Amino acid sequence: MIKPGQLVMLVSPKGKQYFRVLQPDEILNTNDGQLQMQNVMEKGFGARVYTHLNRPYTVIKPALYDLIKAVKRRTQIIYPKDIGYIVLKLGIAPGSRVIEAGSGSGALTTALAWFTGPQGRVYSFERRPEFAELCRLNLEKTGLESRVEIITQDIDSGFGPENVDALFLDVRTPWECLEHIPQALAPGGPLGFLLPTVNQVSTLLTHLEKGPYSSIEVLEILVRHYKPVPERLRPQDRMIAHTGYLIFARLNLSGDEKAPEVQTDHEEENHIC
Amino acid sequence: MIKPGQLVMLVSPKGKQYFRVLQPDEILNTNDGQLQMQNVMEKGFGARVYTHLNRPYTVIKPALYDLIKAVKRRTQIIYPKDIGYIVLKLGIAPGSRVIEAGSGSGALTTALAWFTGPQGRVYSFERRPEFAELCRLNLEKTGLESRVEIITQDIDSGFGPENVDALFLDVRTPWECLEHIPQALAPGGPLGFLLPTVNQVSTLLTHLEKGPYSSIEVLEILVRHYKPVPERLRPQDRMIAHTGYLIFARLNLSGDEKAPEVQTDHEEENHIC
Amino acid sequence: MIKPGQLVMLVSPKGKQYFRVLQPDEILNTNDGQLQMQNVMEKGFGARVYTHLNRPYTVIKPALYDLIKAVKRRTQIIYPKDIGYIVLKLGIAPGSRVIEAGSGSGALTTALAWFTGPQGRVYSFERRPEFAELCRLNLEKTGLESRVEIITQDIDSGFGPENVDALFLDVRTPWECLEHIPQALAPGGPLGFLLPTVNQVSTLLTHLEKGPYSSIEVLEILVRHYKPVPERLRPQDRMIAHTGYLIFARLNLSGDEKAPEVQTDHEEENHIC
Amino acid sequence: MIKPGQLVMLVSPKGKQYFRVLQPDEILNTNDGQLQMQNVMEKGFGARVYTHLNRPYTVIKPALYDLIKAVKRRTQIIYPKDIGYIVLKLGIAPGSRVIEAGSGSGALTTALAWFTGPQGRVYSFERRPEFAELCRLNLEKTGLESRVEIITQDIDSGFGPENVDALFLDVRTPWECLEHIPQALAPGGPLGFLLPTVNQVSTLLTHLEKGPYSSIEVLEILVRHYKPVPERLRPQDRMIAHTGYLIFARLNLSGDEKAPEVQTDHEEENHIC
Repeated sequence: MIKPGQLVMLVSPKGKQYFRVLQPDEILNTNDGQLQMQNVMEKGFGARVYTHLNRPYTVIKPALYDLIKAVKRRTQIIYPKDIGYIVLKLGIAPGSRVIEAGSGSGALTTALAWFTGPQGRVYSFERRPEFAELCRLNLEKTGLESRVEIITQDIDSGFGPENVDALFLDVRTPWECLEHIPQALAPGGPLGFLLPTVNQVSTLLTHLEKGPYSSIEVLEILVRHYKPVPERLRPQDRMIAHTGYLIFARLNLSGDEKAPEVQTDHEEENHIC
Repeated sequence: MIKPGQLVMLVSPKGKQYFRVLQPDEILNTNDGQLQMQNVMEKGFGARVYTHLNRPYTVIKPALYDLIKAVKRRTQIIYPKDIGYIVLKLGIAPGSRVIEAGSGSGALTTALAWFTGPQGRVYSFERRPEFAELCRLNLEKTGLESRVEIITQDIDSGFGPENVDALFLDVRTPWECLEHIPQALAPGGPLGFLLPTVNQVSTLLTHLEKGPYSSIEVLEILVRHYKPVPERLRPQDRMIAHTGYLIFARLNLSGDEKAPEVQTDHEEENHIC
Repeated sequence: MIKPGQLVMLVSPKGKQYFRVLQPDEILNTNDGQLQMQNVMEKGFGARVYTHLNRPYTVIKPALYDLIKAVKRRTQIIYPKDIGYIVLKLGIAPGSRVIEAGSGSGALTTALAWFTGPQGRVYSFERRPEFAELCRLNLEKTGLESRVEIITQDIDSGFGPENVDALFLDVRTPWECLEHIPQALAPGGPLGFLLPTVNQVSTLLTHLEKGPYSSIEVLEILVRHYKPVPERLRPQDRMIAHTGYLIFARLNLSGDEKAPEVQTDHEEENHIC
Repeated sequence: MIKPGQLVMLVSPKGKQYFRVLQPDEILNTNDGQLQMQNVMEKGFGARVYTHLNRPYTVIKPALYDLIKAVKRRTQIIYPKDIGYIVLKLGIAPGSRVIEAGSGSGALTTALAWFTGPQGRVYSFERRPEFAELCRLNLEKTGLESRVEIITQDIDSGFGPENVDALFLDVRTPWECLEHIPQALAPGGPLGFLLPTVNQVSTLLTHLEKGPYSSIEVLEILVRHYKPVPERLRPQDRMIAHTGYLIFARLNLSGDEKAPEVQTDHEEENHIC
């Protein structure tokens, strides 16, 4: 039994996926005929259900990774390898309030909404209406739209929400809106950036150094896939070599005092990764 | 104002950190004198508070990354780079029920408890009592212990909890307990493994191939830190080159049918990372 | 002025390359008409010369990298990133005598012939006649064939040449011919292997450990290209993630004594790379 | 039998290495007593020879890798992983004439002298007399000094040698001497640079784009070592994450025409690495 309101992923014989927030009385029109969601609800996760044309569909409880993979995109999305790390560094938790800009296709938005949960709030800024709309559609598909406020507006003149727990900027010239961050982010709060070129990273660092920011870090994450053949195990021939550089910092405390550098007993943990 | 019951990180002038679930009437004994938690509560995040010896402590709302970094360890911990990716692939969300083994020092346990939230449940198996105890202490320090059931028991004879949403094994010979997974994990559910050597990966793959598992993936994640100097930007001289290989799979559906391979429109997304 | 007998690379308007060992009286037939090599000789490197149809060809003194890139291949070739390192570890120098197997398309053969020079000697074993022929054609194209003896023969029953300076095996099961190496390689001499899978590496190590070999090393080399745009500098989106693992060792001394591990004053040089 | 004039590496029981160009009548004073080089010559490579205090020394024919590892350094040296690639891209061969600046401790100088052989010529510029001297000592130790002309002079006012085959710059601000390269390097000839920071790479690219240079490439090379244990094969825990970025280009042809981009049939070979 699946509870109404829960997210399900229905996978066609050809691998096409449909995401649905379960409504027992809904009928899903697929390329292979109609699916009774009542039937999906009763059979439960891991089951096969059949369309009125007798084609088998698989009922899966999707992981966040599946949602991100299914994001319809017209922009470069932020990848799972980066999203996972961002979420840890920004301290996103059930109930968090967080700002991001820009929304883009909504891959990071999806993850933020996923982890902040129904008690949390994601403020997602996107100045281009067509991407704001795309982000909204991607969120609706997975039932996460109620957790997100998409604000179709430039961030040059500030954010609006105050005292949020974390803030992430995936915009071309993030240094132009640094001045507005202290009004939006809680003192001592974490913030992050994604930038594709070293020139942008260098410019951002120049601005961050002027404060009120501390604990500045720059890093990149690489994922290397292997061919999962036990007797001929080896990396895939090709890999994605670059998506972007991640930059993290903390907003200084009230009164512009720097947040303290945290001591660690474990020398080798200085670069815990 | 910080609400009672919320987690705070108090950082000493020397960078030593104390984690506390806020109780207004508590007095924290530090190396620098006593701190009134009532005072911490009133001043709020981002503030400086003073001990009775007039030493300044900083009040920080910790990110998950801070918690993991602060885990007292007597084992190799799972690193943030890996944890972030694991959490996405396993679909951990507020309310999830998840099994892990072994607990070790509790770094992944902390993350699972963090993301599953108060409505979720983490079943953490650890056969060595001293590590079970260490894991418990680490969880208590950050107030997450109520979300976790630490089970000081070998997993050779099975798990106990049933129909969990996800399962992760960080044990030396995970193939020895594969047979118990179908009784514990929901059909179609995601599972993951961390293994340090290629020989272990190869052995695990041999066993996974026998089923009932599909969508098998092997990968590794590398993080490269940069020296954050804007006018002399360059990678750090050294990096951590290996923590372990990550292996992911899905339990087959009820009746041993394979979960379908999901189709993707974007050829280049086959290896979304 | 280019001296007769020197290697020239002639590049067509469309980028097609012709390699020629310069003979002043030769006429080169190209897709764009005839080129007088006398003219090439007189104009020299860096010049444009014209075919009888008045099409411009560029005269380039090719680097080894160009030769390897131009190798006609019907096998996976060894890549420059690996070749450069192999040559340093094996101590290839003008005058060296070296064994390799198998020849494959001849990329490493080309490099070995290049560096050993006219006084050196490369013994290249290839059991498949069609690849031996391909290797020969590639060497002839660049005028290096006189330095190489291609031996169309399996190495299961031994090599033949004795006391060579170095030995490299790019074959599927190199452990099957380890027993023949002491008769071929000078005592204390360096040997190397390229293997694509971790299983092969593991098997080879098992055999090497039985001796008479020491100073065993396993490594892999990654090259990451950047988009050379000064104001938007960033890595290429994709990279080659794997060609093969390199394994190096030294044959023990006469009388099966291990070659000594060399001490280094510089702690940080233990892994000079 | 080793021929007089050949380079030998003598390794002490503790792993200390002595390099000597063999002179039969020489006596080597070691920490373990005197070694008769006549004896070394007669015993040959791979043998053990004994000091007058009866301590065993091993006679090894060193590889270039050994020479580079033994370079006494007071600067950051260029590493084998980079040297091997540089040599292929620059087309260094027996007989090559090549310019490098600065000499530093002489690691690349050693490699260039090694591969150009007795018929070649390395012009090595170093403005700091103490490093010029260090480079000279390192070359003398391995008998390569006769192939190298160390020029203790800044390159701001030009090089001197003309029409060399290749040129490599490992200096802080290479763009300041770009103007002198056309007078030194043969038309169409290859040149390379090593720079540690992205800012330097960006500045260099800006200058290279102004010409007369083409075929500009930027890349970095990573080496990852494995623990060579067959039944527990895994990468080393740590690796060197950065030495420097390599930049390569070709000098345009006579008359400032660009050297042609070479066509390749193999699409996947565009980034042969």
